[in-house]
Amino acid sequence: MPRKIILDCDPGHDDAVALLLAWGSPEIDLVAVTTVGGNQTLEKVTRNALAVAAVAGITGVPFAAGCARPLVREVETAGDIHGDSGLDGPVLPAPTFELDPRHAVDVIIDTVMAAEPGEITLVPTGPLTNIALAVRKEPRIAERVREVVLMGGGYNVGNWSAVAEFNIVVDPEAAHIVFGEKWPVTMVGLDLTHQALATPEVEAAIAAVGTSPARFTVELMDFFRESYRGAQGFDHPPVHDPCAVAYVIDPSVMTVRRAPLTVELTGTHTLGMTVADFRHVPGPGVTTQVAVDLDREKFWALVVDALERIGEPAR
Amino acid sequence: MPRKIILDCDPGHDDAVALLLAWGSPEIDLVAVTTVGGNQTLEKVTRNALAVAAVAGITGVPFAAGCARPLVREVETAGDIHGDSGLDGPVLPAPTFELDPRHAVDVIIDTVMAAEPGEITLVPTGPLTNIALAVRKEPRIAERVREVVLMGGGYNVGNWSAVAEFNIVVDPEAAHIVFGEKWPVTMVGLDLTHQALATPEVEAAIAAVGTSPARFTVELMDFFRESYRGAQGFDHPPVHDPCAVAYVIDPSVMTVRRAPLTVELTGTHTLGMTVADFRHVPGPGVTTQVAVDLDREKFWALVVDALERIGEPAR
Amino acid sequence: MPRKIILDCDPGHDDAVALLLAWGSPEIDLVAVTTVGGNQTLEKVTRNALAVAAVAGITGVPFAAGCARPLVREVETAGDIHGDSGLDGPVLPAPTFELDPRHAVDVIIDTVMAAEPGEITLVPTGPLTNIALAVRKEPRIAERVREVVLMGGGYNVGNWSAVAEFNIVVDPEAAHIVFGEKWPVTMVGLDLTHQALATPEVEAAIAAVGTSPARFTVELMDFFRESYRGAQGFDHPPVHDPCAVAYVIDPSVMTVRRAPLTVELTGTHTLGMTVADFRHVPGPGVTTQVAVDLDREKFWALVVDALERIGEPAR
Amino acid sequence: MPRKIILDCDPGHDDAVALLLAWGSPEIDLVAVTTVGGNQTLEKVTRNALAVAAVAGITGVPFAAGCARPLVREVETAGDIHGDSGLDGPVLPAPTFELDPRHAVDVIIDTVMAAEPGEITLVPTGPLTNIALAVRKEPRIAERVREVVLMGGGYNVGNWSAVAEFNIVVDPEAAHIVFGEKWPVTMVGLDLTHQALATPEVEAAIAAVGTSPARFTVELMDFFRESYRGAQGFDHPPVHDPCAVAYVIDPSVMTVRRAPLTVELTGTHTLGMTVADFRHVPGPGVTTQVAVDLDREKFWALVVDALERIGEPAR
Ligand SMILES: [Ca+2]
Ligand SMILES: [Ca+2]
Ligand SMILES: [Ca+2]
Ligand SMILES: [Ca+2]
Repeated sequence: MPRKIILDCDPGHDDAVALLLAWGSPEIDLVAVTTVGGNQTLEKVTRNALAVAAVAGITGVPFAAGCARPLVREVETAGDIHGDSGLDGPVLPAPTFELDPRHAVDVIIDTVMAAEPGEITLVPTGPLTNIALAVRKEPRIAERVREVVLMGGGYNVGNWSAVAEFNIVVDPEAAHIVFGEKWPVTMVGLDLTHQALATPEVEAAIAAVGTSPARFTVELMDFFRESYRGAQGFDHPPVHDPCAVAYVIDPSVMTVRRAPLTVELTGTHTLGMTVADFRHVPGPGVTTQVAVDLDREKFWALVVDALERIGEPAR
Repeated sequence: MPRKIILDCDPGHDDAVALLLAWGSPEIDLVAVTTVGGNQTLEKVTRNALAVAAVAGITGVPFAAGCARPLVREVETAGDIHGDSGLDGPVLPAPTFELDPRHAVDVIIDTVMAAEPGEITLVPTGPLTNIALAVRKEPRIAERVREVVLMGGGYNVGNWSAVAEFNIVVDPEAAHIVFGEKWPVTMVGLDLTHQALATPEVEAAIAAVGTSPARFTVELMDFFRESYRGAQGFDHPPVHDPCAVAYVIDPSVMTVRRAPLTVELTGTHTLGMTVADFRHVPGPGVTTQVAVDLDREKFWALVVDALERIGEPAR
Repeated sequence: MPRKIILDCDPGHDDAVALLLAWGSPEIDLVAVTTVGGNQTLEKVTRNALAVAAVAGITGVPFAAGCARPLVREVETAGDIHGDSGLDGPVLPAPTFELDPRHAVDVIIDTVMAAEPGEITLVPTGPLTNIALAVRKEPRIAERVREVVLMGGGYNVGNWSAVAEFNIVVDPEAAHIVFGEKWPVTMVGLDLTHQALATPEVEAAIAAVGTSPARFTVELMDFFRESYRGAQGFDHPPVHDPCAVAYVIDPSVMTVRRAPLTVELTGTHTLGMTVADFRHVPGPGVTTQVAVDLDREKFWALVVDALERIGEPAR
Repeated sequence: MPRKIILDCDPGHDDAVALLLAWGSPEIDLVAVTTVGGNQTLEKVTRNALAVAAVAGITGVPFAAGCARPLVREVETAGDIHGDSGLDGPVLPAPTFELDPRHAVDVIIDTVMAAEPGEITLVPTGPLTNIALAVRKEPRIAERVREVVLMGGGYNVGNWSAVAEFNIVVDPEAAHIVFGEKWPVTMVGLDLTHQALATPEVEAAIAAVGTSPARFTVELMDFFRESYRGAQGFDHPPVHDPCAVAYVIDPSVMTVRRAPLTVELTGTHTLGMTVADFRHVPGPGVTTQVAVDLDREKFWALVVDALERIGEPAR
């Protein structure tokens, strides 16, 4: 039976690939897409989500906009990586459907509370503001959600600072809330996602699918490559967000390690660091784990397979 | 025309008096009462709010429960001051009506967005969790609310620590959010409320009203006196929360001083302190002010007058 | 018997007056003067100390230079208040003697360890770097010093930030060390020193002494008045540092209040605040106290009296 | 020409090996040994340093005691690792010479200032209190010291917390001072020293030297193994401190990587973390580097060689 997920995202090039992967995978039942200010403003990332839906021919899934800014800190976006639109590179089509009128926080709460316990998996690939607000507004979702598989953080790697990753550091209090709840949390962080590089071979395999969503993906990757070259000295761009979706599809796509995880909220040089404590064998109460090693072939095969299943959507 | 207020409270002895004052004052139109975990658990303070409504014969006002815990920090309650029920002392009557099914956050948002701009005043007398969540969920309320008149903080006085007050320090991030928004904020803090002591003369004046709500108030004050004697060395209890309501009724009941206000979030000894900067004449952009001196006679006359207007509610 | 003091200072206009007061008072035996970077660089304040010694005809007292910068933080000076020289206003005479070759920290340690227990009082009127280093290098001075009477901090008043005073906030870790040691500490802070205003009447009384040190003092006050008018909106300058010396001469010159004192080291808005906890009657273990109310007449009479005793030094 | 070093240590089992390695190496000219409270109290580690000197027959080197406690924080020792004496395991001989009467801070300053610029290397293997105090008391040593090669910290590994190492976290402000000065700093941290495990093969090679200092070393390692097994789940103990000495003897014993290094002073979960920023190619102004990979064979060969050169000291 496919796994029901809510994808909470801030598209964002890699969020777009995550959405395509989720939509094209038979192992995933995409029950809602919610957006959050992050890579770009809420308005832009929400428009981008709808554009990706148009590209992929997504129908029957509620899309809802959420929080425009972090809980406690000022807004910070990643225009240097994702461009002015948040999804620079390809031409973005017009939306083909309307947003759900509800707030993302209520879509998350309503969906989780209406489903069976253990039925819904949350897959956040942006700042954790929506998820944090949802669990503070309706604490019962913490026990009802199956698990949270998020892209963010890193136990030995940072990007927005020496030791912190963008999604976590722009709303560290939200991350603290999410990491501290009762639900199981799998952190797919930079340690893992820096292994998911869109090399020319990867791009060629995607291009070979030959459909417009595949071409759209290649155009995203081309822009992303240039961004990462300039800003962070990468040869090939790390495609972070679909890694979290891939773990839901098939956990064997990566190795994970269980360890206590906390988010640093007061550090001068370490604000937003996701601190993993590997010093001891974790006790049974530890419900957090971090992603360690990626099976690159299996991962990209999932992406290609999803694009093939999406095919050429009717316009 | 009476001022429309939403009273966001955590009854609490002084919250109860604030509710009586708001309900009994012709200058106030009480459009909603929302509750938040604070002096006691959300469950208890919500029950207490309904009990006070029963005592006062409040009808036609939605009461809604809100957040059970602070945004970022662990729950801390004030059982040493307010007793196990949160409203120890008098016998608490059974509720006479049902809670509004909506979450307090949505009641606040719906009420503010449905009203005219500048129509609704928020009067928080507990931790600021509900207000903070509301403005993060629906940022437009920040411009639509008339003003926020809150009980909390203190520029030179603390109670929960040397320099911090309970309502602020138990959810300092929420306070930071509320103090940092565009709406005007009047902080009625301990500097002011420690002047609102329920002396025997005050109690005698209240008792002389001779109704059951007045007797209820006296019983609350008696318990409160014992708490404050034991815990903080006061001879007479400071009745904090109605001071904020009194300011809405008649601003001349206290002097205020405009100054930039910030909430300390990282201090070791100063966490949750409300830092007022009095060093310079405040510029026009400063929209925060602190209460300084109370006209005690006028204040208590408002309370007595409200109880007289409430009279003896029908059962 | 006069009280033996080490004056640890950063002259500075008010430090200069403190030095004159100490030198001219029969109740004080000035056993050493040490300097520390603060109002200006170490080099400048040390030169200033020697200039004041020349003005006052001080002889037979070792003057030694100490730390050039705070323990942990970057150097911050107060050129906006004390001018480029640190003692702008009067013409500064050339030194009439050489500095002691020892480091101030060693002068403090040597002096205290060579004296009887309880014999030496430390009077710091600048950042507490020298004192902190001394007690970390030789911990036994903590029990041997009679008391520390320092100018710095404020329990309800700040100048360098809303709630912090210059001497403390520029080296808060040093202050933390000094406040946390076993010796008794009297904090003469801004709450007190903002009562020590050099009004025109005060200046007239000083001018009437008619000597060159008195004229020097008047010229210092004139410059200080302009600084405080421009930078902090004062009509008359608060002459902070001699207040600490005055307390050693005659404790009845001010009222004090015993209370636990801590220095905030991690606050965002409260760094360097001296937090006094007045909530409870202090237990016998509390060895810190703060100055509250100044007897202005008595204070200025001490200053005038010291200048009269200094008279016209031989050149 | 041998390199002149001051070994600033807190023996401590691995400090003892570091001292033996320094004394027995022809590439090292040990000009002073200074002690600092750390693994055990200052009194105990100073006695231990003299005991190791007796074991090794060290003569003609001044040994001086320094700071008994961290600059800002409370004392914390590592009795669970090093035992009650700080050097549990072997029988400790009586000292064969007296301590230098000077404070360690003054020995460091005097030695560096008396030597040529660039002549003295500081090798701290305990908390950095002495070094920090020395450079604050005499700032000119920062330009005169050749380099600082210290054991402490870790860029991806912690022991005293998830991400912090003992030597740094017990006096993080001292570490901040040392890392922030102008001298070049090589941090030999846990990333490196956890590669320096005293395996049975290593112990056998040391035992084969057949002298009393070698037997003493083996007894130290045996105790250390049990400590590390119990406290941190190691099979073989990491012998941290001699790694720093080994780098001075022969830099090719390890690879290093240049990167900006800062010490976290305000983190809740990251206090005392040594944050290395590997995101960018370091500019020419970066004078800090971290040790990465150890040539284990070369390292242990240096230790064995030093013990052979020490031979059997005359009693
Ligand atoms: Ca994303
Ligand atoms: Ca309340
Ligand atoms: Ca001064
Ligand atoms: Ca050591």
